[in-house]
Amino acid sequence: MNSEELFNSIKKKSSFLCVGLDTDYNRIPRALLDTEYPIFEFNKRIIDATHDLAVVYKPNIAFYESLGTAGWMSLEMTINYIREKYPDIFLIADAKRGDIGNTSNMYARAFFINLDFDAITLSPYMGRDSIQPFLEFPQKWAVVLGLTSNDGAEDFQQLEIDGKKYLYEEVISKVASWGNKDNTMFVVGATRAEQLNVIRAIAPDHFLLIPGVGAQGGSLEDVAEHGMNDRCGLLVNASRSILYADVTNTFEIAARQAAIEIRDEMEELLKKEGLI
Amino acid sequence: MNSEELFNSIKKKSSFLCVGLDTDYNRIPRALLDTEYPIFEFNKRIIDATHDLAVVYKPNIAFYESLGTAGWMSLEMTINYIREKYPDIFLIADAKRGDIGNTSNMYARAFFINLDFDAITLSPYMGRDSIQPFLEFPQKWAVVLGLTSNDGAEDFQQLEIDGKKYLYEEVISKVASWGNKDNTMFVVGATRAEQLNVIRAIAPDHFLLIPGVGAQGGSLEDVAEHGMNDRCGLLVNASRSILYADVTNTFEIAARQAAIEIRDEMEELLKKEGLI
Repeated sequence: MNSEELFNSIKKKSSFLCVGLDTDYNRIPRALLDTEYPIFEFNKRIIDATHDLAVVYKPNIAFYESLGTAGWMSLEMTINYIREKYPDIFLIADAKRGDIGNTSNMYARAFFINLDFDAITLSPYMGRDSIQPFLEFPQKWAVVLGLTSNDGAEDFQQLEIDGKKYLYEEVISKVASWGNKDNTMFVVGATRAEQLNVIRAIAPDHFLLIPGVGAQGGSLEDVAEHGMNDRCGLLVNASRSILYADVTNTFEIAARQAAIEIRDEMEELLKKEGLI
Repeated sequence: MNSEELFNSIKKKSSFLCVGLDTDYNRIPRALLDTEYPIFEFNKRIIDATHDLAVVYKPNIAFYESLGTAGWMSLEMTINYIREKYPDIFLIADAKRGDIGNTSNMYARAFFINLDFDAITLSPYMGRDSIQPFLEFPQKWAVVLGLTSNDGAEDFQQLEIDGKKYLYEEVISKVASWGNKDNTMFVVGATRAEQLNVIRAIAPDHFLLIPGVGAQGGSLEDVAEHGMNDRCGLLVNASRSILYADVTNTFEIAARQAAIEIRDEMEELLKKEGLI
């Protein structure tokens, strides 16, 4: 999927919602634990309840790895389910990988070929040859950490380089020059909405993946005001606020309601910008 | 295992060798493909042939993930095999993870609890709350990227902060203040031996994990000259030069020979420093 197709999907659904599948074994309804693959069963019901409201699903790989082989099976089943039943969905592996070239190539094969993700999140610390192998796959995307939503973003990302700009600006600027708007996105935390103006000056056309709305306290309206471009250019993630909106056996009803509320707000913001 | 026990293991074996289990399905002898778990079978034979020469094994997680569920099973079997048969071995997951707190905690559980690794490699880009969860586990280690061996190390790690020092120096300095010499190590590429003096000024007592000797061209002698401290303080990794020393069905004989050659050189260097 290229950026134009992603924008078309956003217009069709009046939504730029990414649902983060941070599926926690300890937080899903207990009744599901009697099924053979509880994590997959939970995901399936969340996906069925929200597929028309979300343009992206983003499994957080840590949650699957923490369950070992059974976790990987649940991840594979989730991806296969989405691919078969909802082929218009864009799929991001939230994995934060990044290693020397031959190892990055192995990760690319793991997530792009074996698991058929469209995109993977990457950490930029190891530089160009840790990102490049992911850009070699046609129609696949590298989603590189820019300025993250957590407190630790201040430790290194906001250090000043040569007294002129912050490290995250240099990261976004350099990485943008390695790829293009059809194979590269950046992660920018919703809690940093005021810095989106700076980022849009560096990368006006790239899609930004924005976590931190909801549980982490960022505002959707602020993000849209400072970050939206003429192709929307935003994918805003919500995880816990949808997945665990309710923890009873009818959790998918509350999950759908939570997603509708976000979609409705997104629809307003897209209309305000004249994009739909 | 704490740093004193690791040093004892180094003295006992006259070796600070880490064998990287970057086990590539396409490079192992074809005859192994007829076994039920070829990756595990290969690892088992490499481990049996080198366990008395190496103090550390370091599976590169990408190589296992690229094989999906079967890869994770091979990884689990490899760890279990080492834990049962060679309990003195220190085990590093080469995973380069790093995410917000609750996700890092999931990775810590995946690698420290479910898989019983002693240590995991981490990327520092997301800052303190991405590292801290790993430091909460007693007797476990965070091995944080400092200055890596690849070309891309120049893109960000060697940027100047406030005109005073390089980013990698700031990373090592800050991360060292979050943990201590019994739960934190740094990755420093052997191809950067001349910068080891700078790093030793910042972190005199920490263990350093050094990749890049062998296939990537770094020199063991240079590394020891600039990086060894009074408890050795070095774990030098070799992967491809041992694993694929020979690609016939008697590969373990060549692997052992390659490991002996490195161990012999390490023994000389330890003697020269008066550590054994």
